[in-house]
Amino acid sequence: MYEKAKSFLLPLYDNIPPPPPDRPLVTLTYAQSIDSKIAIKGKQLMLSGKESMAMTHRLRVIHDAILIGSGTACIDDPQLNARYIPKEDMDHQPQPVILDTRLELPLTCKLLKNYASNQGKQPWVITSPLAAETAKKVALEEAGAKIFVIHEPTTASSSSSSTTTAGRFVWKDVLALLSHQGIKSVMVEGGSRIIQSCLTSGSVDQLIVTIAPVYVGNQGVDVSATTELDHVHYLTFGRDIVMAARPLHTA
Amino acid sequence: MYEKAKSFLLPLYDNIPPPPPDRPLVTLTYAQSIDSKIAIKGKQLMLSGKESMAMTHRLRVIHDAILIGSGTACIDDPQLNARYIPKEDMDHQPQPVILDTRLELPLTCKLLKNYASNQGKQPWVITSPLAAETAKKVALEEAGAKIFVIHEPTTASSSSSSTTTAGRFVWKDVLALLSHQGIKSVMVEGGSRIIQSCLTSGSVDQLIVTIAPVYVGNQGVDVSATTELDHVHYLTFGRDIVMAARPLHTA
Repeated sequence: MYEKAKSFLLPLYDNIPPPPPDRPLVTLTYAQSIDSKIAIKGKQLMLSGKESMAMTHRLRVIHDAILIGSGTACIDDPQLNARYIPKEDMDHQPQPVILDTRLELPLTCKLLKNYASNQGKQPWVITSPLAAETAKKVALEEAGAKIFVIHEPTTASSSSSSTTTAGRFVWKDVLALLSHQGIKSVMVEGGSRIIQSCLTSGSVDQLIVTIAPVYVGNQGVDVSATTELDHVHYLTFGRDIVMAARPLHTA
Repeated sequence: MYEKAKSFLLPLYDNIPPPPPDRPLVTLTYAQSIDSKIAIKGKQLMLSGKESMAMTHRLRVIHDAILIGSGTACIDDPQLNARYIPKEDMDHQPQPVILDTRLELPLTCKLLKNYASNQGKQPWVITSPLAAETAKKVALEEAGAKIFVIHEPTTASSSSSSTTTAGRFVWKDVLALLSHQGIKSVMVEGGSRIIQSCLTSGSVDQLIVTIAPVYVGNQGVDVSATTELDHVHYLTFGRDIVMAARPLHTA
């Protein structure tokens, strides 16, 4: 399964056009149901089977960083490292990055615990100037987080270009910060608002969607956008189908 | 491509459990975008590529009837026959059936024209007792339609079990009527309300969903349900992926 994931994933990046100099290469990846639900409001939803999950972990190894929103960090409490992979690939662990405008990341989360016990990389938390002045910032730093501050867009500009915002940040700013920190490739993993905005940000080089053969229904959280795709490939992983594609008009 | 469709589709029906005696075997089939949109409100949306379209036409040949709602009949003006298939299969044309509570089917539609010019089977139109008393009923009959009347559920029962209604009818009644007319297998093709209700009716034996690699966005019409699937198979047709599966708890 690991070899299968490898031989599916690696060629996708072989001839991929390089990203502009001010941002890393961006892979957007998520798992959805047939009816395009990625979660149930406020709850984790396990959609991927173990084979497509292994594929996702293989994908993590070939990226410098993994980025998620604070909502996902709070609800899923993920480790954001690559597991279910052979020993020789274990060294290539990605940098965990959390977009967290209000510094909601719990001090007890696995990301901080793993770092404290030498089991994981230091989590990077990107936050707003306002949150950076709170006691939570100091507490998170004491717990091991590295805090970065970027400005939120003004209300006026965020409402006029809501699709280009990452959570409450502007994708361009987030990606420029990562690039500045030496991150050459980032895998954006969720949640729904992050996925949704990333998809239409014009900054996705590679899209990888796992589709699980199940209908979740109206209590599910949707991902929807208006995007044409190119370079479409499919591979089945267990009961799931994985689609790799490149959004058109990527800038 | 035709042979590929055949070798994908035919085995799906090899070991399928027979339907109960009071209804035909039901295949539900539709094409959706990645974000599970099947149409843009009130407009036809061409999602399938020509390869998966050919697959759909192959599927039509192995069914006794094709059923659609009057909305789709009005907007798409479909012929509901099997085209893009070899000559030897041309004789197995399915019976077109339209669910049309208010008898909205245009007198100038291709279904009636084809029948008048000996190019297609006589369209069956299932309607309500009220509409069956109108002049439109007489006009449709003169134009060649065969009209069947079934009762609509009362408002109370339709709101309490909206998921079991076909348009404004009850699936059980529609399927019993078809069965009574000698239809042993029916392919349900749309539109969204028909698909949605059929999916959760407990009467789908085989589900075939074409997924086109495109995002349609929020102006699209959704299909969503809460359904587990079994016997999942995938095959790529051109740029599209086709999923065949059986909804669980089919009765």
